[in-house]
Amino acid sequence: MFPNKKVQTLIGQKIQVEMKGEKNILEGTLISADDYLNLHLIDTTEISNGERLRSLGSVVLRGNNIILLNPVKEQLS
Amino acid sequence: MFPNKKVQTLIGQKIQVEMKGEKNILEGTLISADDYLNLHLIDTTEISNGERLRSLGSVVLRGNNIILLNPVKEQLS
Amino acid sequence: MFPNKKVQTLIGQKIQVEMKGEKNILEGTLISADDYLNLHLIDTTEISNGERLRSLGSVVLRGNNIILLNPVKEQLS
Amino acid sequence: MFPNKKVQTLIGQKIQVEMKGEKNILEGTLISADDYLNLHLIDTTEISNGERLRSLGSVVLRGNNIILLNPVKEQLS
Amino acid sequence: MFPNKKVQTLIGQKIQVEMKGEKNILEGTLISADDYLNLHLIDTTEISNGERLRSLGSVVLRGNNIILLNPVKEQLS
Amino acid sequence: MFPNKKVQTLIGQKIQVEMKGEKNILEGTLISADDYLNLHLIDTTEISNGERLRSLGSVVLRGNNIILLNPVKEQLS
Repeated sequence: MFPNKKVQTLIGQKIQVEMKGEKNILEGTLISADDYLNLHLIDTTEISNGERLRSLGSVVLRGNNIILLNPVKEQLS
Repeated sequence: MFPNKKVQTLIGQKIQVEMKGEKNILEGTLISADDYLNLHLIDTTEISNGERLRSLGSVVLRGNNIILLNPVKEQLS
Repeated sequence: MFPNKKVQTLIGQKIQVEMKGEKNILEGTLISADDYLNLHLIDTTEISNGERLRSLGSVVLRGNNIILLNPVKEQLS
Repeated sequence: MFPNKKVQTLIGQKIQVEMKGEKNILEGTLISADDYLNLHLIDTTEISNGERLRSLGSVVLRGNNIILLNPVKEQLS
Repeated sequence: MFPNKKVQTLIGQKIQVEMKGEKNILEGTLISADDYLNLHLIDTTEISNGERLRSLGSVVLRGNNIILLNPVKEQLS
Repeated sequence: MFPNKKVQTLIGQKIQVEMKGEKNILEGTLISADDYLNLHLIDTTEISNGERLRSLGSVVLRGNNIILLNPVKEQLS
């Protein structure tokens, strides 16, 4: 399964995303993703060292500025 | 709805945009957007910690340098 | 009108451009632009806080490194 | 063998990846890669000077933000 | 004339190039350029404040990391 | 000869590569390159001021993060 298909399997789940221009991690529920990894998240919050900093609500992230993303659950295992 | 379609639904609304080369957030009314997330905003202002810094008027933003964008209203909810 | 068409309407006008690798703003007359927002400017100068720093003459700017551009006139309104 | 084919040969192996927005190296087992070098890794950990810092589990990395990647074994030879 | 065609007219001339990852300007004779603004320069030197720092000889520059380029002559006018 | 063809002529030679996310230069033998300038190098070492810092062995470099590359020999001339 290619990486963009892996991302499709995460729709509806909470994910964490590290962006190029952000010191903090974004956490939100993945609503949609396209092949460029552009993402639409809702209930998005900025997180720093496990602490919630800022609530951003519904955001669109530009795929080419994503460093990495991972599902919140799998991160715990 | 793919992320670029989500952005289309924001046309006519006030949005906030975080750019890669900008410390401050840009806020303006979205006039148009293409599939690369290139954006045309009017009544654009730079904002830092909720304070308006600089009025930029009509601006074109290059999509690949967008980190994230969100509608101003949804951010309040 | 899509953002790249908006840029086409600025040909012949003085514009300001913020580039990813530049602390200062570039101001010049827009001679041509393509769909990637690659730009050819003439009479280009670097500007910092309204002061002209360096005259660069005729320059080609790579579109993907543009953060934002705006017409000089509209900025005043 | 083109570079993207070289990456395909690393599937199932432990690799190290240096990302643009990461001070630390990521090490994980390569599950899949596409032609843009988007990668899906599992058992991913952040490494700094040979020390494991953080366990990230299953991650998707955006190809255009990869600086370099290499197989862990070949690095020892 | 589109920006990439403007660059074609500079083949054989000395140009200066500002790169995203370089503090210093590169100056060399333009041998070839493609539509992505990938450039092949010869007799390339790094320049800082008009002083020659390092001779790099024949170099290939990746177009997407070019901030701006301009002909050396036009810069003087 | 377009820049990507110039790079093809360097296959089998030692080259130096400056990457966007690397303070140090990478030096290695070029095994393959594609049109995006993705590179496969072997016997790669990190170099700082002419000193070898770290041996990386076989590495794949993502083309869009290359600032410049040049052949080691030509650099001496």
